[in-house]
Amino acid sequence: MSDQNHFSVWRVNMRTKTFQREPVPTSWEKLGGRGLLARILLDEVNPTCDPLGPNNKLVFAPGLLVGHMVSSTDRISIGAKSPLTGGIKESNAGGRTGLQLTHLGIKALIIEERPEEPGWWMLHLSTDGVRFERADESAGLGVFSVAPPLLERFGDKVAMALIGPGGEMRLRSAGIQNLDKDRVPSRISARGGIGAVMGSKKLKAIVIDGSKGSKPPIADPEGFKRAQKEFTQALMAHPQTATYRDFGTAAMVMMCQGFGALPTRNFSSGQFEGAENISGEMLRQTMLNRGGDCDTSHACMAGCTIRSSNVFGDVNGKEVVSPLEYETISLMGSNLGIDDLDTIARLNYEVNDLGLDSIEIGAALGVAAEAGLLEFGDRERALGLIREIRAGTPLGRLLGNGAGITGQVLGVERVPVVKNQAFSGYEPRTIKGTGVTYATSPQGADHTCGLTIRAKVNHLDPAGQADLSRTTQINMAGYDTLGACIFAGFGYAVSPQTIPAMINARYGWEAPADFLQVLGRETLKLEREFNRRAGFTPADDRLPEWMRRQAIAPMNAVFDVPDEDLDNVFNW
Amino acid sequence: MSDQNHFSVWRVNMRTKTFQREPVPTSWEKLGGRGLLARILLDEVNPTCDPLGPNNKLVFAPGLLVGHMVSSTDRISIGAKSPLTGGIKESNAGGRTGLQLTHLGIKALIIEERPEEPGWWMLHLSTDGVRFERADESAGLGVFSVAPPLLERFGDKVAMALIGPGGEMRLRSAGIQNLDKDRVPSRISARGGIGAVMGSKKLKAIVIDGSKGSKPPIADPEGFKRAQKEFTQALMAHPQTATYRDFGTAAMVMMCQGFGALPTRNFSSGQFEGAENISGEMLRQTMLNRGGDCDTSHACMAGCTIRSSNVFGDVNGKEVVSPLEYETISLMGSNLGIDDLDTIARLNYEVNDLGLDSIEIGAALGVAAEAGLLEFGDRERALGLIREIRAGTPLGRLLGNGAGITGQVLGVERVPVVKNQAFSGYEPRTIKGTGVTYATSPQGADHTCGLTIRAKVNHLDPAGQADLSRTTQINMAGYDTLGACIFAGFGYAVSPQTIPAMINARYGWEAPADFLQVLGRETLKLEREFNRRAGFTPADDRLPEWMRRQAIAPMNAVFDVPDEDLDNVFNW
Repeated sequence: MSDQNHFSVWRVNMRTKTFQREPVPTSWEKLGGRGLLARILLDEVNPTCDPLGPNNKLVFAPGLLVGHMVSSTDRISIGAKSPLTGGIKESNAGGRTGLQLTHLGIKALIIEERPEEPGWWMLHLSTDGVRFERADESAGLGVFSVAPPLLERFGDKVAMALIGPGGEMRLRSAGIQNLDKDRVPSRISARGGIGAVMGSKKLKAIVIDGSKGSKPPIADPEGFKRAQKEFTQALMAHPQTATYRDFGTAAMVMMCQGFGALPTRNFSSGQFEGAENISGEMLRQTMLNRGGDCDTSHACMAGCTIRSSNVFGDVNGKEVVSPLEYETISLMGSNLGIDDLDTIARLNYEVNDLGLDSIEIGAALGVAAEAGLLEFGDRERALGLIREIRAGTPLGRLLGNGAGITGQVLGVERVPVVKNQAFSGYEPRTIKGTGVTYATSPQGADHTCGLTIRAKVNHLDPAGQADLSRTTQINMAGYDTLGACIFAGFGYAVSPQTIPAMINARYGWEAPADFLQVLGRETLKLEREFNRRAGFTPADDRLPEWMRRQAIAPMNAVFDVPDEDLDNVFNW
Repeated sequence: MSDQNHFSVWRVNMRTKTFQREPVPTSWEKLGGRGLLARILLDEVNPTCDPLGPNNKLVFAPGLLVGHMVSSTDRISIGAKSPLTGGIKESNAGGRTGLQLTHLGIKALIIEERPEEPGWWMLHLSTDGVRFERADESAGLGVFSVAPPLLERFGDKVAMALIGPGGEMRLRSAGIQNLDKDRVPSRISARGGIGAVMGSKKLKAIVIDGSKGSKPPIADPEGFKRAQKEFTQALMAHPQTATYRDFGTAAMVMMCQGFGALPTRNFSSGQFEGAENISGEMLRQTMLNRGGDCDTSHACMAGCTIRSSNVFGDVNGKEVVSPLEYETISLMGSNLGIDDLDTIARLNYEVNDLGLDSIEIGAALGVAAEAGLLEFGDRERALGLIREIRAGTPLGRLLGNGAGITGQVLGVERVPVVKNQAFSGYEPRTIKGTGVTYATSPQGADHTCGLTIRAKVNHLDPAGQADLSRTTQINMAGYDTLGACIFAGFGYAVSPQTIPAMINARYGWEAPADFLQVLGRETLKLEREFNRRAGFTPADDRLPEWMRRQAIAPMNAVFDVPDEDLDNVFNW
C-alpha cells in the first residue's frame, strides 16, 4: 500500500460535530510534525485571528519518521496559533499519540470551530472514523483522574490527548497531555497554551484507538531496517546517552550551576547554593535509596533506547510524579529558592494534574515572589498558589496565564519572557547562544528550539552566538519535523546519513544528504511567515531590555549579542 | 522678545537630579503639543524600550497657541511611550499646566531616567529653574489629599501635575492630573498609562510657578487680537456651544442611546433601559435642584467661553466630583448596568483620587462583570472593586492595568480594546467611523483622536467611514498640536481662517490656509513612524475579532468596514 492510500487528513468540526477524511494535499506530503503544522496553519488559519476564538485550529501531526518505533522518533507535534505568544506554536511530546495516529493513517488531525452549546466533548478516533461523545463528567477533573476511567472503558491499547482544568479555564500556560507507554498522561505538549486552544473548542479528551489500523507502508523495508540499526547503534554508543539513562535531564543541574546559568530566584542569580540538593546525582541516589516505584531510567515511548525519563517516588517509594525533568527542577526549584526534590516533585505533580506547563508556572511564581506574593523558598506558599490556580481565583488565573502577564499586573520589571513566553532553565546571559534562540525563535523563548549549551564554545562571548543558534535552530526544526526527540540527535549527529537513508527507504524519495537542514530551513521559513502575517517584526526578536542592563551573578554577564546579529539569524 | 529668546527645552534627569535648559532644535520650533511630543519621542526614545524602564521619557509640551488664554486653547500635551499600548502616547488636558509652562518659556519639559535610591520626588519649576524635593510624605496619597498642602506651601498661583496611588503602583490605566482654574486636580491626562511612566520615574508631583515668568511674545499683537476675537465670536455663535454649556458632554447619553451606541453591560448592547436616569438632562436637573456647590457650566481653563465642565454634588449640594463627563457616565454607568448618577459620581471620584483613567477602569469593570466578579448593576461591589485597586491587591492591580489584561486573565472574549486600550463611550459597530478611528489611531482606541458621531452620514453604513475617520483624525491631531480643545473646533470649523491668522500673528510665520491639516498630517506621520519602529503593523490596526461576528443589539450591526479601508486611512 502506498502512502497516498494509507494517509489522509482528518478534519473535525466542533460546531457541527462533523468529520471528514480528505486526501493529503501535494504540498503537505513531504512534511510532517512541526513543519507540516506550519504549512497547515499558514494555509488555513488567519494569523491575526483570536487564538481562543472559533477561527483558530488545533492540529495534530506526527513527524515524518513516526510509526515504526525508531528509537526516540515517534513524537507527536501539536500546534495552533498560540494564545500565549500570539504567534505560531508547535509543541511536541513523546508517548503513544504519534504512533497511534499513524496507525490510523492520519497525516494530520485538524480540529476546527467550537460548539455553540454548553458542555464538554470527547473525540474517539478509530478505523471507523471519529465519534463525538459528551465528556461533561470529566469536566473540572485533573488529567490523572480523567485518564483511568477512559482507559477502563476504551481498553489500554488506546492513546489519549487530554487537557486538565487549566485548559478548560483557557489559561495561557495550559498544555495537552499524552499517555506514555505505561498509560500515564505524563507526556506534555506543554508550551504556548495549546491546551487553552483545545479548551476553547470545549474538547476535554481525544481517544485514539489505532489497534485495528496498520503501520504506515515502507517502500524499502530492508533499507529501512539497515538505516534504523545503524542509527540505533550510533545512539547507544554515544556517551551522552548513558548520562541521560542514569540521570535523565536532571544531569543539567550541576552543568548549569557550573556555567552560572542555573535560574535562581527569578533569574537574579545564575548559581544556587542549594544546587547539589536538587542535582541529578541527588535525584538518582534518592530514588535508588527509596526503591519501590522509583525508576531512574524509564522510557516514554515504546522502542526508546535512551530512557531518559524517570519516576520520582516519596519516602516510601510511592510514585509522586513522572518524569521530573531538569526544566521543572530549575524553574520550580532554584528559581523559587526551593532546594528539596520532594517539594519540587509535589509542585510538578500538581501542575501536571492541572494540565499546565511547569516551566511557565515556575517562572510566574518566581515573578510573583519578586512582587512579594511569596518568600523565595516558602514551599507551602508555593503549593498554596498552585491551589489558587486550581480554584480559578483571579490570582490563580493570573499566575496560570504565565510569567509575562503576571509581571505586567504585579509591576515587576525582571520578567523572563520573549514573545510573552517564559525562558526555560538556561540563563541567556551566560549561555548566549541559547539567548539568541530565545530571542529569535518563532516559538518564543524555548530551549527545545535550539539549545546551545553543549557546543564547545565560550558561552559568555557574544561573538558567533547567532551563527551557533542558527545552526541549532535549523537542526531542531528538522528533528521536530521528523518526529525525533532532541536526544535522538545524539545518534543522528554521529550518523547523519541515517536520516536521508531512513526517509528514502520509508517513502521512496531521493532526499539529499542535508535533508535534516532542508526540513529545518523550510519549517522556520513557514513559521516566520506566519508570524510576519500575525504582526511580528524584528522588535519581537529581542530579549527583555533589563537583561542588557542587569548583570547576572556571579559571572557578571549581561546579554550583549548585538541586535544586528539577532536580525541576521534567519539570513542563511 | 523673539520666540528664540523666550522658549527653551527644559531637560530633567531623575537619576542624577540635574536640570538643563537647551535651545529649541530647529526641527522642533514649528510644532507644539501632540505633534512636538511625537517629534521628540521619535528623536530621543528607542521605540522598543521598556515603557516603565529608565529609557522611556516623559514629555510635557504646550500646544502652539497656548499661553494667551484663547478660549479653550491652552491645553497641555503629556506623552511617552505608552505602557498600555506599547506605542506612542499623547494625552492632553485643560487646566493651568499648559499656560504656566509657556509663561516659564518651556517649549518642552523632558523627564529622563529614574532614581536609583528609594523614595519619591517632586519637581518645582520657576524662573529659577528646577528644584528637586523629596515627596515621601505624599506617597500613597490620593491626588485630592496631595494638592491642598502643596497649594498652601507654594501659593495658589502655581499649576501642578500629579499622580495618585495608581501612578505610584505603575498601573497601566494611571493618568496625570492637572489643576483646573479653581486649583482642583481634576484635569486628567488620562489615557495610555502615562501616570505609570511618571510613577516609574518616582515623580509624585510637578509644581509649576510661572508667576515671575511672562506671556510668550506675539509678533503682531493687533492681528492676533483680531483673529482671536473672530474665533471667539464664531465659537459663541455655534449652537453646540450652548448645548455643552448647559449639559456638558453628558448631552451625549441620549444621542448615543438614539444611535444604539451607548455602551451597555460590557458592550453587549447599544441601548440601556436606564439611559434617561443618567442623561445630561437628568444631570442638569439634579444639579439645579440640589444647588450648593453644583454648577452646570464650569470652565476648566481661564478664558474658556464654552464652560462644558460641571460640578456634581450630593443631595445636600456638596461637591462629589468635577467634572462628570459623558465617557465616565457611559463606561461606569450603562456599561456596568448602573443607572444612578450618584453612584457614577462616587465611582468617578474614587478613580480620580487614585489617579486612574475612568474609561479604562469602567471598561475593566465591565469585563470583570462578564467574568462573574460582579453583577451588572451592583453598585456596592463596583465600589468594592475600586477599593481593591486602592489596596493594591492582585485583583486590584489586575483591574488597574486595564480592560485588555483583565480580559486575558479572566478568560473573557468580549473585551473592548484596540492596541490594548479600551474603547470610550461610543459603540464602534453603530458609529463605524469612530470604529475606524479606534482601529487605526496610533494612540489606540480613543474617541478624542477622531470622533465621527456628529457627521451627517449613515453611521451604520461601512462605506465612506474610512474617509470620514481620516479627515477627523487629521483635524484632531492638528487641534492637539495647537493646544485646542475638541470643542474649540466648533469655532475653528466655522472660521478656519482664524487658525493661520492667529498662528501667523503669534509667530510671524506664513502658515498656509490648511495649516490645521498640515499639522495633523505631520503629527500622524510621526506617530505612525514611532509605532512602526516599536513593532506595530497593519495587524494592530483592527477592532477585536468578535466585533465582526457578534451583532450589537438592537441595531443588529457588526463591524464591517473592510480591512482594506482600514489600511488606507493613512494613504492621503
